[in-house]
Amino acid sequence: MNDKTTLKAAVLGASGYTGAETVRLLAGHPRVEAVAATGHSLAGKQLSEIFPHLAGAADLPVVKADDVDWSNVDVAFGCLPHGTSQDLIETLPDHVRVVDLSADYRLRDAALYAETYGRAHLNPERTAHVKYGLPEWRGADLSGETLVACPGCYPTASLLALLPIIDLVDPDSVIIDAKSGVSGAGRGLKEGNLFSEAAEGVHAYGVGTHRHAPEIEQELNLQAGRTDIGVTFTPHLIPMTRGELVTCHVRGDVDQIHAALIAKYAAAPFVSVLPLGAPTPDTRHVRGTNNCRIAVYPDRVKGRVVVIAVIDNLVKGSSGQAIQNLNLMMDWDETLGLAGLQALFP
Amino acid sequence: MNDKTTLKAAVLGASGYTGAETVRLLAGHPRVEAVAATGHSLAGKQLSEIFPHLAGAADLPVVKADDVDWSNVDVAFGCLPHGTSQDLIETLPDHVRVVDLSADYRLRDAALYAETYGRAHLNPERTAHVKYGLPEWRGADLSGETLVACPGCYPTASLLALLPIIDLVDPDSVIIDAKSGVSGAGRGLKEGNLFSEAAEGVHAYGVGTHRHAPEIEQELNLQAGRTDIGVTFTPHLIPMTRGELVTCHVRGDVDQIHAALIAKYAAAPFVSVLPLGAPTPDTRHVRGTNNCRIAVYPDRVKGRVVVIAVIDNLVKGSSGQAIQNLNLMMDWDETLGLAGLQALFP
Amino acid sequence: MNDKTTLKAAVLGASGYTGAETVRLLAGHPRVEAVAATGHSLAGKQLSEIFPHLAGAADLPVVKADDVDWSNVDVAFGCLPHGTSQDLIETLPDHVRVVDLSADYRLRDAALYAETYGRAHLNPERTAHVKYGLPEWRGADLSGETLVACPGCYPTASLLALLPIIDLVDPDSVIIDAKSGVSGAGRGLKEGNLFSEAAEGVHAYGVGTHRHAPEIEQELNLQAGRTDIGVTFTPHLIPMTRGELVTCHVRGDVDQIHAALIAKYAAAPFVSVLPLGAPTPDTRHVRGTNNCRIAVYPDRVKGRVVVIAVIDNLVKGSSGQAIQNLNLMMDWDETLGLAGLQALFP
Amino acid sequence: MNDKTTLKAAVLGASGYTGAETVRLLAGHPRVEAVAATGHSLAGKQLSEIFPHLAGAADLPVVKADDVDWSNVDVAFGCLPHGTSQDLIETLPDHVRVVDLSADYRLRDAALYAETYGRAHLNPERTAHVKYGLPEWRGADLSGETLVACPGCYPTASLLALLPIIDLVDPDSVIIDAKSGVSGAGRGLKEGNLFSEAAEGVHAYGVGTHRHAPEIEQELNLQAGRTDIGVTFTPHLIPMTRGELVTCHVRGDVDQIHAALIAKYAAAPFVSVLPLGAPTPDTRHVRGTNNCRIAVYPDRVKGRVVVIAVIDNLVKGSSGQAIQNLNLMMDWDETLGLAGLQALFP
Repeated sequence: MNDKTTLKAAVLGASGYTGAETVRLLAGHPRVEAVAATGHSLAGKQLSEIFPHLAGAADLPVVKADDVDWSNVDVAFGCLPHGTSQDLIETLPDHVRVVDLSADYRLRDAALYAETYGRAHLNPERTAHVKYGLPEWRGADLSGETLVACPGCYPTASLLALLPIIDLVDPDSVIIDAKSGVSGAGRGLKEGNLFSEAAEGVHAYGVGTHRHAPEIEQELNLQAGRTDIGVTFTPHLIPMTRGELVTCHVRGDVDQIHAALIAKYAAAPFVSVLPLGAPTPDTRHVRGTNNCRIAVYPDRVKGRVVVIAVIDNLVKGSSGQAIQNLNLMMDWDETLGLAGLQALFP
Repeated sequence: MNDKTTLKAAVLGASGYTGAETVRLLAGHPRVEAVAATGHSLAGKQLSEIFPHLAGAADLPVVKADDVDWSNVDVAFGCLPHGTSQDLIETLPDHVRVVDLSADYRLRDAALYAETYGRAHLNPERTAHVKYGLPEWRGADLSGETLVACPGCYPTASLLALLPIIDLVDPDSVIIDAKSGVSGAGRGLKEGNLFSEAAEGVHAYGVGTHRHAPEIEQELNLQAGRTDIGVTFTPHLIPMTRGELVTCHVRGDVDQIHAALIAKYAAAPFVSVLPLGAPTPDTRHVRGTNNCRIAVYPDRVKGRVVVIAVIDNLVKGSSGQAIQNLNLMMDWDETLGLAGLQALFP
Repeated sequence: MNDKTTLKAAVLGASGYTGAETVRLLAGHPRVEAVAATGHSLAGKQLSEIFPHLAGAADLPVVKADDVDWSNVDVAFGCLPHGTSQDLIETLPDHVRVVDLSADYRLRDAALYAETYGRAHLNPERTAHVKYGLPEWRGADLSGETLVACPGCYPTASLLALLPIIDLVDPDSVIIDAKSGVSGAGRGLKEGNLFSEAAEGVHAYGVGTHRHAPEIEQELNLQAGRTDIGVTFTPHLIPMTRGELVTCHVRGDVDQIHAALIAKYAAAPFVSVLPLGAPTPDTRHVRGTNNCRIAVYPDRVKGRVVVIAVIDNLVKGSSGQAIQNLNLMMDWDETLGLAGLQALFP
Repeated sequence: MNDKTTLKAAVLGASGYTGAETVRLLAGHPRVEAVAATGHSLAGKQLSEIFPHLAGAADLPVVKADDVDWSNVDVAFGCLPHGTSQDLIETLPDHVRVVDLSADYRLRDAALYAETYGRAHLNPERTAHVKYGLPEWRGADLSGETLVACPGCYPTASLLALLPIIDLVDPDSVIIDAKSGVSGAGRGLKEGNLFSEAAEGVHAYGVGTHRHAPEIEQELNLQAGRTDIGVTFTPHLIPMTRGELVTCHVRGDVDQIHAALIAKYAAAPFVSVLPLGAPTPDTRHVRGTNNCRIAVYPDRVKGRVVVIAVIDNLVKGSSGQAIQNLNLMMDWDETLGLAGLQALFP
């Protein structure tokens, strides 16, 4: 496309956090204009009534998906819950490119999808071939694609840390101990997400059963050319809103691992690998940005290595990465609309 | 100046929060380039060692002020503590414009300064005539100025709310009950600012004695052409990092007050006055931006009115407003480098 | 009653925060045994399934109110929402003493109740004569009572600060700027109470319309023998779980005010009045206790005074005060079950 | 000793968090009376000036250790920093029993102590034989002891989870991913512990180098009769004040592991092992108590098991356990002064 192309975008499910964040980020994108925001129960309101921080340039009326004039839409960002997302995406006209932030097209194996998400997939053939939008790894495949599945927030951080080193570590040793802010749980109303119950404490959840584990395993096995890599994935809810940190415990050689990470991401605009011996990466240092920071530490037990990655779950973990994927689908500079984001600290 | 002018900036006191925030915001300014960052005990480090979120485009070596090549500096942002700030500013070469974020040049009356801040002012004559950089009020005076004093964070929010209405309210009725995040206390090490002591609780401080009260009174009296307006100013420390909310209790007519605010800020790019009956403004809705939101509510007691204003204390309350002031000093669009800031929510 | 009496208690609405807190505190009361906990949608569960911190000594099965064997119950703690509470209380057998933590019996005037709470009162005659359970003021009236209405959390703190001085201040000057932790909003599911939306920010709510204002006015007028005192009451939601602070702005003489408070509470076991000049009271210093701390400060504006009171909204502001009221109804030492509570800091 | 014995206690280092917490808990102990609180820079103040929550029954003047009348002291709680603690303890008269909360007497091997804590031990012979005060494991040895070393907070949680199962798991598999509230870092003034830098984010620290790892290894090896067990120990700073959670990743059989934990702690008053399948334990459920909750989960990877333990780092992780140890030294019921503590939730 030529230099002047501007796309018109619809954000599906704009009343959730990833929807709102997508709208917010699109307001700063030079070549995409958000023209529609869909919602179900909140249709009829202005987006700024639901999210006052979007008042002004980013504001839009919320409409039902059925009421969108799709002839005026070039790209749709799917910010709906898994399950729900495919129901709408499968009905969209062919000319609408889709960047899906839900889990619906992440797993190639429809049977695994059904087992993991509790419903049959509407289009097993399609999901089997959808491109997995982890730009630093699958970015080269995205050019011209019409449907891209964005990774989950945990898989994003975990895979950025582990994909470059999966061939260097004992594949039987991978333990991911993950920590996420509460916004990762979305805007759904549950007692456990109330301030009074999520503040001033910490707990694990989904131990041994979290849905992001099969997704991480799929990509690690694809990369390693294996089928037998299993990962221990144990997430924890942290009393903070944004941010995600994965602590990956592996067996391998710390220098090899560090060198592989450095080499892989030397030219990646959003991923930094810290020098050996650097202070530990902190979610605060990437808050509000599309950045990922990775650091490697030798453990006191010989042969064990700790690899830590941090992201903002709502940016690199969802809406920012979705935009990065769109940029690549359009053969644009992948940093468009994202390069200017600066971490908000303190 | 012509369209292409770019200024070279030094940030004095870059190891504090307002210094770091100024550097961060300047990285997004199209016509200012930060070329020097000064610090005392941390000189010799990179700024990104102190503030890892500034790694990349915003990074600079921290040097002692004595080691700055001032011939290469067009403008200095003073982010030093009050008292300290004037000591350096008074030694700068004449060609260096100064935007001072400290309290040192805010009070016109050097005797009041001495009483309030506990030291004699080095240059009483100068402080008596310095422009007070509240752009929505004194902006027209800033063109070509070489020294501008930025208001304190509390005065910024309080005055934006009260200046338009001071002639409409009982001047003897003004009570400002203020709430600030902990970053307002700076990076100094005090037990009360430790997480374990600032989280999960609230308390007032400086009751009846806070240094921002004389500053607020100075400007209200100037505006009203009086000398006798005194304000009750009671700040509270809130367990949050950024954000400031002032609740102004006054006697007056709610419709008159609302109309005056609407009229005053109709064309102000950073100040919004919410419609009567709107949901209450929230610091979350301006976090990371140079915006101020103001709302007006009738009290249940006839004749009493509540005016609420919210800002981000580190942006509109300090570094963002400093840049807005520089823009006006240079006759640039006042939104330069600030227009793209979007509130980070959740 | 003799020294050995033990009462059997039912907690109505044990699945909310005040219900759970009442159960927790009763577990430490030497003369009350909780024998029943009622809930509607959660009936059939153990209380410890809903509130794991109650596992052990304080655990009980949750049953529907209809399934309680009232012949085995001496006292009921009403921890139901306003409106709902009276529906159940009016059906209880006569032998069951009631300590109601809801708003249903706080307002003497049924018309004001209807206007404030949006429904007609079931028993206007009864509510007109119910004792208002603010022990430091109405404690002497409680002996032998069968129904006591516990004050709201905001009225508790506000009235403890203002009742002793209402005759000493300009009655037209009373402004209460209040701050509460999120637990004050209860366990109901609303977006605004989610961690991601209640953390890291502050906002006012119910400005000019909060339901606790009429309650505060009722008691101030009763005390002053007037009918015309109106208060400005402006509450704010603070990103903390427990704790409540009221900042009362009045006109009066600071020494007189302080002396009156000191005199009033000299013998009160749970209320401390700090010396003039003391550091500001902090909600952290009363967390988990039935204590209230009050301090008085002269304002910089002559004749204005700031009175600050802090409580734990779930203890002195609800469940602890309820137990204190029961103690007085039974002619027991009012500190029974409460004296050993120590503030949890940090 | 007979039933009526009451001990007089000195708290050494009462101006830190563990000192203040020890004083707080002792105020509720029926057989110990705190008679002295020592501090260095704060000597001359009342404890309640430093910690207003201790006003009342728990208040004491802070004095220099040199000014304590040791003839009036039966037991000293050492709440000083490691290194400093032994300097004072080694000078105490023989009749003073010592419960040391510092790290100074935890490591049997003085060379390991020197390497880990950076100074030579004053009394290598004594530390080699001091009893390690983890009551559920070494409690039977404490009767009549005059010096007991309390475990670190992380070792307490880790060892309670791992000691019962170390013989059942692959000893080469133990990975402890730990999470602690900020109070675990003490009251020392560091930028990283400021609210503005510790809130709203998460990071690891001391990766591969934390001082608690050798302590954990010492006890695991002792228990297993080995010398070669090494543990990966990776702690993270969580934006909460109190609470500690350890996530232990091991290889073994989930049923065997669960059964061993159940059997070990069946009669332990402060340790609960949750049923298989129970909701995950949460630090909030033990806040303010001496309790530890442990749960076991099968991982999705066959043969891997996740064991989680939660404690309040300031109670079971320090001051509460210290009192539990004193109870055992005195042959008292180990729950004395601790049984009535109830978790503060929400």
